[in-house]
Amino acid sequence: MSLDALTADLRAFAAERGWEKFHRPKNLAMALAGEVGELVAELQWLTPDECEALTDAQREAVGAEMADVLMYLTRLADVLDIDLDKATRAKMARNVLRFPVLEAGGEASVVAVQA
Amino acid sequence: MSLDALTADLRAFAAERGWEKFHRPKNLAMALAGEVGELVAELQWLTPDECEALTDAQREAVGAEMADVLMYLTRLADVLDIDLDKATRAKMARNVLRFPVLEAGGEASVVAVQA
Amino acid sequence: MSLDALTADLRAFAAERGWEKFHRPKNLAMALAGEVGELVAELQWLTPDECEALTDAQREAVGAEMADVLMYLTRLADVLDIDLDKATRAKMARNVLRFPVLEAGGEASVVAVQA
Amino acid sequence: MSLDALTADLRAFAAERGWEKFHRPKNLAMALAGEVGELVAELQWLTPDECEALTDAQREAVGAEMADVLMYLTRLADVLDIDLDKATRAKMARNVLRFPVLEAGGEASVVAVQA
Repeated sequence: MSLDALTADLRAFAAERGWEKFHRPKNLAMALAGEVGELVAELQWLTPDECEALTDAQREAVGAEMADVLMYLTRLADVLDIDLDKATRAKMARNVLRFPVLEAGGEASVVAVQA
Repeated sequence: MSLDALTADLRAFAAERGWEKFHRPKNLAMALAGEVGELVAELQWLTPDECEALTDAQREAVGAEMADVLMYLTRLADVLDIDLDKATRAKMARNVLRFPVLEAGGEASVVAVQA
Repeated sequence: MSLDALTADLRAFAAERGWEKFHRPKNLAMALAGEVGELVAELQWLTPDECEALTDAQREAVGAEMADVLMYLTRLADVLDIDLDKATRAKMARNVLRFPVLEAGGEASVVAVQA
Repeated sequence: MSLDALTADLRAFAAERGWEKFHRPKNLAMALAGEVGELVAELQWLTPDECEALTDAQREAVGAEMADVLMYLTRLADVLDIDLDKATRAKMARNVLRFPVLEAGGEASVVAVQA
């Protein structure tokens, strides 16, 4: 699935239901924050190791929350007239410069990440 | 850009820098929450109308934060072995059933959204 | 209610239930993010004006989420050995210096807030 | 410090700077989400053990973010006319009923937490 196709599907979905009036940027940003909260909550009491060995039911639940995050993110980009695909390519190109691959391993660049 | 291609790029990016040890699910979920916080912060003091008439600089800043959100979301799906594309299709199919298009307008289904 | 009293109550509540092993910092930070997500979700589809004229039921629901946020925040401070009271006084003292009151109104300092 | 005193201080702080027009509920909820994002980000790359042995500098940074969270939470309660102290007492009373202390340990009630 491309982001463009998802954008078009979500736009039609909202239009068919008369939801454009609710889909204003601040509202969608808040909805996105709410869904990320639900996603984080799915993992909050699990240990790091448990998170890497999710049961099928857990993986299903987490996946459903991740889908909600992606859908609100995509819809927000659409109403803000932001090309999320282009913005992501640009950010990745910047990250390549910002975090160079080191000969001796990645430790130094990790420091940069945390800065 | 497909989610599959983005997933592959981010996986390679992390591997080249030795970051897999940091990219554990809870850490990535927290990073995602942090980036969504930055995104929301870009819009927090703007009025609803101002959000719909962003300047180029604002749109650039918001787009960069949205890219970070998408990248951490995609990376988290990868380390959790979740097919985000498939999960999103499934969620959209459920939403079609959950929020039927009404003949007389979308008000009733909006109530459902808020429930 | 003082933060100290709330801290003591929450510590006892967790101890009586054997929850200390779950109340590790990352877990509590994630739980806090989850509760903030629930709080934000309560207001997401309301207009700015509707938010300032909540019904009793809405105010009750929002208040319950705010309580959850306060409780996880207080509990997190406790397990991190952070004096939240002291940290808040320090931050307020810094903000007084950072955002001076202007004779002619607060517009200039608002710019500082948004910077 | 009591929540009432903090509420009064923050109200005066905003009034002196002419910030009431910015301190509308949705804006403050978004600011709160933004600050929680910053707080979570402070801990995101640390291991669980590292989080429990913060350096003084880390503890200072985390405490400053926690203060921001508390201030926005308190300010939001004020503009929504919600008594956060009362809401918190009510929530704690409900939690006592919801999570009874078990004779044989807290495991069963933990399951309830995760439900």
